[in-house]
Amino acid sequence: MKFIKTPVKGMCDMLPADMRLREHVLGMIKESYAAYGFMQIETPVMEHIENLTSKQGGDNEKLIFKVMKRGAELQRALDKGDGELADNGLRYDLTLPLARYYANNKEKLPSPFKAMQLGNVWRADNPQKGRFRQFTQCDIDILGDDSSLAEIELISATSAMITKILGEIGLTDFTVHINDRQILGAVALAAGFAQEQIGSVLISLDKFDKIGLDGIERELLENGYDAEAVTRYLAVYRAVREGISVEEFCEGIPQEHRPQKAMANLSEILSCVRPMLAPGVKIVFDPTLVRGMGYYTGPIFEVTIDGYNFSIAGGGRYDKMIGKFSGQEVCASGFSIGFERIVTILKDHMAGSYRLPGEPTAFLIGNRVPQSRKIEVLEQAQEMRKTGAIVTVLPMSKNIKHQIELLEAEGYSRFEKVFE
Amino acid sequence: MKFIKTPVKGMCDMLPADMRLREHVLGMIKESYAAYGFMQIETPVMEHIENLTSKQGGDNEKLIFKVMKRGAELQRALDKGDGELADNGLRYDLTLPLARYYANNKEKLPSPFKAMQLGNVWRADNPQKGRFRQFTQCDIDILGDDSSLAEIELISATSAMITKILGEIGLTDFTVHINDRQILGAVALAAGFAQEQIGSVLISLDKFDKIGLDGIERELLENGYDAEAVTRYLAVYRAVREGISVEEFCEGIPQEHRPQKAMANLSEILSCVRPMLAPGVKIVFDPTLVRGMGYYTGPIFEVTIDGYNFSIAGGGRYDKMIGKFSGQEVCASGFSIGFERIVTILKDHMAGSYRLPGEPTAFLIGNRVPQSRKIEVLEQAQEMRKTGAIVTVLPMSKNIKHQIELLEAEGYSRFEKVFE
Repeated sequence: MKFIKTPVKGMCDMLPADMRLREHVLGMIKESYAAYGFMQIETPVMEHIENLTSKQGGDNEKLIFKVMKRGAELQRALDKGDGELADNGLRYDLTLPLARYYANNKEKLPSPFKAMQLGNVWRADNPQKGRFRQFTQCDIDILGDDSSLAEIELISATSAMITKILGEIGLTDFTVHINDRQILGAVALAAGFAQEQIGSVLISLDKFDKIGLDGIERELLENGYDAEAVTRYLAVYRAVREGISVEEFCEGIPQEHRPQKAMANLSEILSCVRPMLAPGVKIVFDPTLVRGMGYYTGPIFEVTIDGYNFSIAGGGRYDKMIGKFSGQEVCASGFSIGFERIVTILKDHMAGSYRLPGEPTAFLIGNRVPQSRKIEVLEQAQEMRKTGAIVTVLPMSKNIKHQIELLEAEGYSRFEKVFE
Repeated sequence: MKFIKTPVKGMCDMLPADMRLREHVLGMIKESYAAYGFMQIETPVMEHIENLTSKQGGDNEKLIFKVMKRGAELQRALDKGDGELADNGLRYDLTLPLARYYANNKEKLPSPFKAMQLGNVWRADNPQKGRFRQFTQCDIDILGDDSSLAEIELISATSAMITKILGEIGLTDFTVHINDRQILGAVALAAGFAQEQIGSVLISLDKFDKIGLDGIERELLENGYDAEAVTRYLAVYRAVREGISVEEFCEGIPQEHRPQKAMANLSEILSCVRPMLAPGVKIVFDPTLVRGMGYYTGPIFEVTIDGYNFSIAGGGRYDKMIGKFSGQEVCASGFSIGFERIVTILKDHMAGSYRLPGEPTAFLIGNRVPQSRKIEVLEQAQEMRKTGAIVTVLPMSKNIKHQIELLEAEGYSRFEKVFE
């Protein structure tokens, strides 16, 4: 028999210390979001292949783990030669299942509905450091609220959650970046780009952190865009200085192109969120923030931590997406938390592994201990557990030193050897 | 675009009330077992198809959801005509992945290792009431302990956990049944059956609850077994009366066939577990307990609840299984908890759904409320959250009565309407 003892490619076995850290973080996320009224829900890990391949998932659709049909249905598909061999697939994110879930259960749910999801997703990506084929996502979404209150609650709740978790390791400084897709669009239109060019122009602007405004200019010109439009476009961004307000930035957009409603909305979010933030946390209007996903329609936001070159949370408003699935338009805005990144940051800052809390006790029972003494020890252990202690009763190993070392590594600090 | 809004066949969308109940039960299970020194671990939901189809999973191997190869590898398999199209599959239980995990990580783990797993498994079974294609299993296993201490800890911990969870709904009476595969084998051998017939004989004995001893006798005779052996075999079971001890039962086995070591071991488990049990909980020697899985080698056990015709937990010792995978024999004993059954029992006993705890508050904000007032409300909500309260801030719906009804259904009891 061929037995493979490593996990499948790109996936991880979680050791006890890994699990303790992950459970601790998950617990804090759940508690934080629950206090803000987000309700935990869950969808099956498998979705209909038709839903997964409906062009809502962008590049993720190329990375689907497909689940094969079974029995006669599989045979029919094989006989056909070019039939679809899969009927299901593993979800590649939590947003698409949420859209299906909401279409299926809307009548039973409060409106607006504040959803919290914590679950694994799967992508057949090339595994690399920090990128896995099975990983945990934490999403919060507010469905059915078209007002700025949705973003205010999403951002306040997420900031509070991050403050709580990273505060434990003394990381109190982070920044929420916010922008609006409609402002991004207005700048491009005002500069002279056509509506259908905006997507491509934004792909270039999205590279701001990597190539700067000069690099973006070069790229836009290389892509054949009108030189005057490019100059007008970049002039607006060249005028940006630190701490610029929405109103100040939008003065660079000719009056007739200014997205007044989006501007007022964004200003309101900034004004309402600011008083909610802990010391050390900033929310800034970031006119060059783009965020990749094409489905965003309004405010977009992202959280960065000083000293890390990746964002640990990101999201935005996607008012058109659920409607594409359910036939009935439902406004929606959501925040996705980089759970694996938070875990990585916590690990970086910890000396050693994440150990059992308190002073766990191990009773080590020698092999000549009579039954009556065993019962005494078992009863003593049970009494200790009633006070909240972690207590294990184990047979003593021949190599007791090694046995104790491995238990100490997990956090056991008290050892009671019972010889007779 | 074809969009399917129901979940895939046999799987469930979990509503907020479902999730609250499930999370509550999962939390109690984790806490109970952690106190006994069980350490939570996790394996990927996908396993190598070679491992899943290695004949350790019995009938479950027919129910595997297979994950298709991708890209060039899939094409190669298709071109071959009879190639294996899948490289992975979804796990159908937590025991096989545990065997792989232990082989992969043994050196890093304490010995003996007390593992706790809570996770979903998938089986392409025919869905029916209470049987799903994705469901949660909770397993505890002790690896590397060949003594009765393993069973004592498994059974004590599980009894304490069930007492705690079902005690909440006033269900305090349940029974742990225990037997030993070696005693079952000894009775059959002593009656005159051959070693290789034991498996088949036990399949008949396993039907005791359904067809009784007379039914078993008929079935064994129909299967062509020697009439005298059948009579001798059943005589041992006909002599069983309530409360029979291991020693009394084994007097029915001729001296030379008596499995002395297994008998002493089983008696020790009974003697040591009994003082640990809460009032209302019994542990009984049950000579007709068989349990289906062929891989059990020693003590086997099961928990039944008065008034329910199914067991809610079951397990046993499987000393040969891990060795078949890792090449190195590792003794093991485990208990699998019927998580979905516990959830079903709790649901049966609850009036209404599982609601949010405490007195959650909803602020409902009218659409003409000025920004300054919104900030006041948001700050008030945040202060309340600091005291542990659940507080949501929502835009007021046009149909405010319906909005409040749906929130009340989830457990909200305080509503603050903010009009200006």
